[in-house]
Amino acid sequence: MLEAVEKADRIILGIDPGTNVTGFGVLGIYGKTPRMISLGVIELSKTGDHYMRLSHIHKRVSELVSEYLPDELAIEAPFFGKNVQSMLKLGRAQGVAIAAAIAREVPITEYEPRKIKMAITGNGAASKEQVCEMLRRILDIPAEALRTKLDATDALAAALCHFYESGKPAAAKGPKSWKDFIARNPDKVSGL
Amino acid sequence: MLEAVEKADRIILGIDPGTNVTGFGVLGIYGKTPRMISLGVIELSKTGDHYMRLSHIHKRVSELVSEYLPDELAIEAPFFGKNVQSMLKLGRAQGVAIAAAIAREVPITEYEPRKIKMAITGNGAASKEQVCEMLRRILDIPAEALRTKLDATDALAAALCHFYESGKPAAAKGPKSWKDFIARNPDKVSGL
Repeated sequence: MLEAVEKADRIILGIDPGTNVTGFGVLGIYGKTPRMISLGVIELSKTGDHYMRLSHIHKRVSELVSEYLPDELAIEAPFFGKNVQSMLKLGRAQGVAIAAAIAREVPITEYEPRKIKMAITGNGAASKEQVCEMLRRILDIPAEALRTKLDATDALAAALCHFYESGKPAAAKGPKSWKDFIARNPDKVSGL
Repeated sequence: MLEAVEKADRIILGIDPGTNVTGFGVLGIYGKTPRMISLGVIELSKTGDHYMRLSHIHKRVSELVSEYLPDELAIEAPFFGKNVQSMLKLGRAQGVAIAAAIAREVPITEYEPRKIKMAITGNGAASKEQVCEMLRRILDIPAEALRTKLDATDALAAALCHFYESGKPAAAKGPKSWKDFIARNPDKVSGL
């Protein structure tokens, strides 16, 4: 086992699922200090077949769970998107990633992109670059480690957001369910 | 192992995924004759939490794969739906079911509801009851076995549709990819 994993009080795996690129970030918590352990992407754009992509996401996330033994999974999960086809594909990518965590009984929490951006930068409309820059400062990440796709830093941001949120009292947390989200954001829900 | 499974030349597992009810049907092929081996539903409406439901679908489909050792999985998969939220949820349900098949390297084929109805009844707009009645006749199913939710017969219909389709030459088959589906059905794709 990696020393950084062994010494951590808690490991949070962040995942930003997508059928073109799935990002992942592993965050270790040492006392009250979060540190980046790993960061990367599962590149899928050259994997032709849709099932091969889903299979690849499932296998890689299963491997990440085996390797880093996360205590929790934080997943970036938009509640609404461009169209029903893209949401079905996104749902499948989320589903195979979720199944990898479920199989090892790792608890899952999902966060909207806006919520993650707000938690990291204080601005729910921040750019991916701004999120990346804030992560670099907060976690003191060396510049060379950040030479990766922004899907990876988005995933790490989900993990850090979960660390911040899990310290808060329950009432201050974001929506926990669809019903709750829809009740809180009737204007954001299209097509109902 | 069940005798019906052992004697079959080929086993097709049909799944109709959904987060309220997921239907399943197991079809055995004996020479050129299809016969129903099993039929049922994974009832989820009383399972409160969304992740618990996904977990339950994943575990039950994994169990079905272990028990019946299917050679193929046929999945009922609508390409379009009411709204993005329902499609994301459906995509997740499909994703965890697909992950269960992927883990055992069972090849997956998906069929649109309309295609399944057409294959079974000759009418793409047939009702679930009509599909059920045709299945009863084709597979000579005893009436008491059909005292289940229609999600189960829909799943069995997907398996039988796959049996019919897999005997056809490749050119006669349905769309194999999103790109293909969209190219063939521009009028059916909403929100692009």
